[in-house]
Amino acid sequence: MGQKEHGYEDINFAKVDYLRQKRTGQPEVIFCQGKTPEQVVGIIQSMLRNGNNVFGTKATRELYDYVSAHVEGVAYNPVAQTISLMQAQEKTTGSYIAIVSAGTADLPVVEEAYETALFLGNKVEKIVDVGVAGIHRLFDQLDRIRGAKVVIVVAGMEGALASVVAALVSSPVIAVPTSVGYGANLNGLAALLAMLNSCSTLSVVNIDNGYGAACQASRINQI
Amino acid sequence: MGQKEHGYEDINFAKVDYLRQKRTGQPEVIFCQGKTPEQVVGIIQSMLRNGNNVFGTKATRELYDYVSAHVEGVAYNPVAQTISLMQAQEKTTGSYIAIVSAGTADLPVVEEAYETALFLGNKVEKIVDVGVAGIHRLFDQLDRIRGAKVVIVVAGMEGALASVVAALVSSPVIAVPTSVGYGANLNGLAALLAMLNSCSTLSVVNIDNGYGAACQASRINQI
Amino acid sequence: MGQKEHGYEDINFAKVDYLRQKRTGQPEVIFCQGKTPEQVVGIIQSMLRNGNNVFGTKATRELYDYVSAHVEGVAYNPVAQTISLMQAQEKTTGSYIAIVSAGTADLPVVEEAYETALFLGNKVEKIVDVGVAGIHRLFDQLDRIRGAKVVIVVAGMEGALASVVAALVSSPVIAVPTSVGYGANLNGLAALLAMLNSCSTLSVVNIDNGYGAACQASRINQI
Amino acid sequence: MGQKEHGYEDINFAKVDYLRQKRTGQPEVIFCQGKTPEQVVGIIQSMLRNGNNVFGTKATRELYDYVSAHVEGVAYNPVAQTISLMQAQEKTTGSYIAIVSAGTADLPVVEEAYETALFLGNKVEKIVDVGVAGIHRLFDQLDRIRGAKVVIVVAGMEGALASVVAALVSSPVIAVPTSVGYGANLNGLAALLAMLNSCSTLSVVNIDNGYGAACQASRINQI
Amino acid sequence: MGQKEHGYEDINFAKVDYLRQKRTGQPEVIFCQGKTPEQVVGIIQSMLRNGNNVFGTKATRELYDYVSAHVEGVAYNPVAQTISLMQAQEKTTGSYIAIVSAGTADLPVVEEAYETALFLGNKVEKIVDVGVAGIHRLFDQLDRIRGAKVVIVVAGMEGALASVVAALVSSPVIAVPTSVGYGANLNGLAALLAMLNSCSTLSVVNIDNGYGAACQASRINQI
Amino acid sequence: MGQKEHGYEDINFAKVDYLRQKRTGQPEVIFCQGKTPEQVVGIIQSMLRNGNNVFGTKATRELYDYVSAHVEGVAYNPVAQTISLMQAQEKTTGSYIAIVSAGTADLPVVEEAYETALFLGNKVEKIVDVGVAGIHRLFDQLDRIRGAKVVIVVAGMEGALASVVAALVSSPVIAVPTSVGYGANLNGLAALLAMLNSCSTLSVVNIDNGYGAACQASRINQI
Amino acid sequence: MGQKEHGYEDINFAKVDYLRQKRTGQPEVIFCQGKTPEQVVGIIQSMLRNGNNVFGTKATRELYDYVSAHVEGVAYNPVAQTISLMQAQEKTTGSYIAIVSAGTADLPVVEEAYETALFLGNKVEKIVDVGVAGIHRLFDQLDRIRGAKVVIVVAGMEGALASVVAALVSSPVIAVPTSVGYGANLNGLAALLAMLNSCSTLSVVNIDNGYGAACQASRINQI
Amino acid sequence: MGQKEHGYEDINFAKVDYLRQKRTGQPEVIFCQGKTPEQVVGIIQSMLRNGNNVFGTKATRELYDYVSAHVEGVAYNPVAQTISLMQAQEKTTGSYIAIVSAGTADLPVVEEAYETALFLGNKVEKIVDVGVAGIHRLFDQLDRIRGAKVVIVVAGMEGALASVVAALVSSPVIAVPTSVGYGANLNGLAALLAMLNSCSTLSVVNIDNGYGAACQASRINQI
Repeated sequence: MGQKEHGYEDINFAKVDYLRQKRTGQPEVIFCQGKTPEQVVGIIQSMLRNGNNVFGTKATRELYDYVSAHVEGVAYNPVAQTISLMQAQEKTTGSYIAIVSAGTADLPVVEEAYETALFLGNKVEKIVDVGVAGIHRLFDQLDRIRGAKVVIVVAGMEGALASVVAALVSSPVIAVPTSVGYGANLNGLAALLAMLNSCSTLSVVNIDNGYGAACQASRINQI
Repeated sequence: MGQKEHGYEDINFAKVDYLRQKRTGQPEVIFCQGKTPEQVVGIIQSMLRNGNNVFGTKATRELYDYVSAHVEGVAYNPVAQTISLMQAQEKTTGSYIAIVSAGTADLPVVEEAYETALFLGNKVEKIVDVGVAGIHRLFDQLDRIRGAKVVIVVAGMEGALASVVAALVSSPVIAVPTSVGYGANLNGLAALLAMLNSCSTLSVVNIDNGYGAACQASRINQI
Repeated sequence: MGQKEHGYEDINFAKVDYLRQKRTGQPEVIFCQGKTPEQVVGIIQSMLRNGNNVFGTKATRELYDYVSAHVEGVAYNPVAQTISLMQAQEKTTGSYIAIVSAGTADLPVVEEAYETALFLGNKVEKIVDVGVAGIHRLFDQLDRIRGAKVVIVVAGMEGALASVVAALVSSPVIAVPTSVGYGANLNGLAALLAMLNSCSTLSVVNIDNGYGAACQASRINQI
Repeated sequence: MGQKEHGYEDINFAKVDYLRQKRTGQPEVIFCQGKTPEQVVGIIQSMLRNGNNVFGTKATRELYDYVSAHVEGVAYNPVAQTISLMQAQEKTTGSYIAIVSAGTADLPVVEEAYETALFLGNKVEKIVDVGVAGIHRLFDQLDRIRGAKVVIVVAGMEGALASVVAALVSSPVIAVPTSVGYGANLNGLAALLAMLNSCSTLSVVNIDNGYGAACQASRINQI
Repeated sequence: MGQKEHGYEDINFAKVDYLRQKRTGQPEVIFCQGKTPEQVVGIIQSMLRNGNNVFGTKATRELYDYVSAHVEGVAYNPVAQTISLMQAQEKTTGSYIAIVSAGTADLPVVEEAYETALFLGNKVEKIVDVGVAGIHRLFDQLDRIRGAKVVIVVAGMEGALASVVAALVSSPVIAVPTSVGYGANLNGLAALLAMLNSCSTLSVVNIDNGYGAACQASRINQI
Repeated sequence: MGQKEHGYEDINFAKVDYLRQKRTGQPEVIFCQGKTPEQVVGIIQSMLRNGNNVFGTKATRELYDYVSAHVEGVAYNPVAQTISLMQAQEKTTGSYIAIVSAGTADLPVVEEAYETALFLGNKVEKIVDVGVAGIHRLFDQLDRIRGAKVVIVVAGMEGALASVVAALVSSPVIAVPTSVGYGANLNGLAALLAMLNSCSTLSVVNIDNGYGAACQASRINQI
Repeated sequence: MGQKEHGYEDINFAKVDYLRQKRTGQPEVIFCQGKTPEQVVGIIQSMLRNGNNVFGTKATRELYDYVSAHVEGVAYNPVAQTISLMQAQEKTTGSYIAIVSAGTADLPVVEEAYETALFLGNKVEKIVDVGVAGIHRLFDQLDRIRGAKVVIVVAGMEGALASVVAALVSSPVIAVPTSVGYGANLNGLAALLAMLNSCSTLSVVNIDNGYGAACQASRINQI
Repeated sequence: MGQKEHGYEDINFAKVDYLRQKRTGQPEVIFCQGKTPEQVVGIIQSMLRNGNNVFGTKATRELYDYVSAHVEGVAYNPVAQTISLMQAQEKTTGSYIAIVSAGTADLPVVEEAYETALFLGNKVEKIVDVGVAGIHRLFDQLDRIRGAKVVIVVAGMEGALASVVAALVSSPVIAVPTSVGYGANLNGLAALLAMLNSCSTLSVVNIDNGYGAACQASRINQI
């Protein structure tokens, strides 16, 4: 369990990176998918030993049950599939991130982004189910969206909402394609490609990557 | 639960759109996939409160069981995977939509299209299992197909039926590729690409999208 | 050069189909790409011999120059890349087809659709450069779009315009993806996939297929 | 230039295989694409030295001009893009191969198959422009098609003709997708996938591979 | 249940085609995937009523259990996943089809091809596990392979066996790619593409399509 | 030429959007690819009439030559393929955008981003040829990169530079994949996919889209 | 059970290859996926009869349980999913293979490579969780990596670690993409394409193919 | 032009890396594609100033003509498309690399690998046109192939040669897919996927990447 002087702790199957916050402004987060429950608990215990806050994504309820049996005080958001345990409270920003989404089925990605943004100390506003099939619902929310320092747009199917929103605001827009849909949706590739080809100004993260969108938005919101 | 004056009801996780029927001629329909049972029931109750008919697609039997335990009078078509509850009867058209399909395995998509078209107030004729492997079966049905105001063709595998039908009629043809097949079928992409490249006049909807085909056909049938 | 009694003329390299108009309401049209200039002229001469109007798509200027040196009275639209020669005038419809497009670079597809729709006897309205990057331009044109019996939407890049328009009208919408764009546009696949996954009611034709969209729209407009 | 005792001649950049005819019933053929004119001539001269007939595919006119300047008696089919020089005449079969094609733009592939089948000593019948957009043209030719020992079907776009023909005959059908089309045609992939997913009995060769189809058909025709 | 005079029986969800054997030399076969057990039994009963032999592919054990509870005398090959019931014995050919395969994991496809070929009245020889990783095993079997009238080669992963075999025999070779492999295998696409690009003479059927390969081979074997 | 009261000028083939700057903070820019030289000049003249600065991307030298023959004072960057004409000078920011690139072949994209960022009033620093094949070159530049308010990373081939940079800074990183490479590069898709899957915090724009990256970076830099 | 004189034993469903070790330096290994438990046991018993060591990959725990009930002394690594049984000990090399990996979720592939390399008689060093998101962890291990005769780099997501390592060492690097990730990861294709386009010197094996990487590394390590 | 103390020379548009040879055993090489002739000459002059040998790949004849007009003594291999200028001669290895190729059209990749391997100081043997369509040609060369310390196999189309060779030797095999072929070849993807799924032991480089294969082989040959 050495190497702490180099900014990480080596716990055999992982080298937990304590320099990351200093280097990038954001602490290491546990991507739970593909890790055994024992590994997740091991990493959490290393983080707690070093005074860190703990946050994990893509955590199934089964994983949470195992973790909460071994570590006290872990919170779970079942829609977001995130676990968290705060040892020290981040200061919250004055400016806010707006998370705008197209349909109800996009909520898991919205929630992952929401939990991540909160964990990183941001104020957040959620504006859901304003897809272009009923565009008047979006126009009612324009003031709240325009008030944000940075906007995350979450949309599946054809992902058109991202282009429409980005053409109506002057703040940076991060687009998150979701895998909501079927057939020629290709598990979210259709929305991903659409967003990459937007005629509006925006940048894109991976399909269903609410976590990554919130990390990027947080870097911007904390400028 | 405000915003009704703007044509929708905001029920927190959704903004149910009541203007849609007026704007597009077709009421909002619930795409059940990716929604929790609680959300589906919440949306149904909002619709009922506002005097709407209810229709949902991609509804598993498990979902239907939950819904019918909370809302009275919901009907279920297990092949189509649709739920419905009619508060007011639509007037049925005089002209009809023909739904023509290639093989028995395409029936779930046929049924989804059928239920949707009925819900939208159309007269419908089904003509199934007339794929090109036994093309004489198709020729026997030509008069019924030619009598339709608009034709939906449902086919998987190589999707050749759509081109053949569209070359034999003068009414508009909507082609629906299905995911029936395996291997180089690529979950329906083979049929989709074939239909998009048809040498006949037709337009195409997403793989297995019986719902969308029926909506489009209904707009045409109600001209 | 026999077989006329069967509804076509066999000119060795082609069997020109004279029954098509009767069978499908639309005469045979020459897809010029991949045919030699000699073949195109041969087919035109067969058509003229049989009293048909002539229309060809994907015709380069080189092809047109060759054709007009061998056949008198052929007209050319260089943006649409269409050739035409009318022996008998079709009656024009009272209702109209609206062709709505996103950007200036989509004009070749708009023009192909326009020429085709005219050839088939339709009244047509063009509404260009109303993409979602400046959505107020679209709202100014809503009345003209809503007045159409059927709407063709032409868009490249992310193709979002199709979903937005289809959610605002009650007439059938035919979406045409274009190959305008680069990189992850994949020569129009991005727009094609987006349109196939639209949350609005529409059906789709092949990339850059203004011709096919107009044929389908004409079948609908002439109901 | 040794190794003849092993059934091939080593000419430095190539090892010309003289055992192939004995082993597979078909002599080596020159795939010209990607070879320099000098290499093609070198291989031809090796073949002539060894008493072989010469046949080459994918030969541009430029290549032919170079070859005919260096080797006497070479014939060229500009549509098929084949070169040939017969030193010994193959015996022609009594039974015939039918080559059936969908449209005029498929003729280059038809001609490549035709020249190859002739070179391999087969009787051949060509039946062109009988695509499903005018299916009555196909039915007029059914007797000629059913009379063949083996049928090659050449089709681009959605490739539906292959399925339709294979369902109407009892002889083996070899399907050749062509790259005729554009957009979602994906340079012939649409037709290829369609044929691989046919609901009828057939087997498939590479896109535009008239040569390979004829080789396979010849093996069958010469049973 | 009419239409028998037209060569098929209409049983509501299916139109069972009795002309197929006469038209194509091969009777209709049940593709069980995507059909309900009730539908499969209904089709079998229609076939039995009309004196046909019964054969079905892609039949799970669950399906077989249901079928055998409703129809007497049905046989099951669990590796091939085929069901069969012979009312009349086909005459068996003198010549044989060789089925050659690369590895043990390809056996389900080998068995599907084997059962299909037997059903269609062919003599068959199986030669398994002779992949190119141990090519001496193949050379030991060359005489048996060369003795066949037609050869089916079944191979997954890189599918190289098909090219190697086709270069060593003079009879027609049908290549069947299998989905054996993982990762860049893309569920059999790697082997499929390899076979389509073979430098040897062969034609190809869909991934895992032992049934189709046997149908094609049977057409050839019965010439 | 009306509609100015609605924030755009309608010049027949285009509707030039003058509200865009107010709505999004960034003026309309001409995407020259796919527009005729006449159309580009027409749009420029409309912009000049309305007092706007002019900027165009994907402008070939041929286009520039035509434009400069019709409009005075247009500047051209042949590597960036941009044209520009400033009527009013934007105020330049104090903070700067760093543009970091992997190799010399990525320079056209670097230059497009550079020109765009300047046009939008940003201070910019370029740091080129610091790809991971010689990672010590990158570490020498870390201070300049860390000093930026926002970082653009431009890389082709495997695109690894973006992940490495984003893990070393705390400012937002915009990654631009380029089409530099060949074969399995798939015209930039390899780098695009790699960047979308980055283990570091970043967001992505389309392949070769230096323009879009600079627009997004400018929105951030001007917070 | 003959053919032993030809270097393999024919056990009906398999031809176990005993010449492989002599021919390639490496004995036959059992790829368990797609084989029935009975087949795996049959192959193991053939190997034991012939005095071979036994090694199998992609072995689930269910398979192991069945095997260990029928064969004594079989060891199982549940992370690697390998089974093994050593009858004779290989001599271990003096030089070592370094296996370097990016994240904890890559461990199954690391372990498969590790077990394979040990089975083939190599000394191995594992260096895990040194991905580029915390690149200082990698630099701490450079001496151990540079000391290896050959390096295997295992990485999912964007796979950048492979390029970074290969640019820092002079020994051959074998890159193994893993399927760790989601969305645009495309089950490991993103990392595979990135590695194939590396700007550093390396060669690549299939996604998740720890086994193949170790075989290749062993050939090099035993030079 | 500073930074030499850090192991590279900064020449504005490039940072030429002089540490690479020491770090990786191989000097920096110029990938000419995508660089202007001026840039290539600038890099060459920087290399000469620093006493390095010069080697460039993907160099067209036009580029060579420009370079040789500005730098004396540059050699050109027009098939390989490589330029080179040796200031100091590398010592040549005793052991050799065998480059084995399938067909004549693969020669450009063979030559690129050959020139690269020579430049890096290796002894090389070329064995061309031994593809599996005439496998006896390969067996004649087995001794030369088995005598190599490492083998490069170059093959297009289905790429089967790589698997066959790798199963017959015990030295490491590097497979290079080429873009030779058409249609479903997908510009070399078919061969690439086949090689990645090989049942034999080998590792793979990018399509047409003779350069990378030779670099990897050189690292192995110089162990």
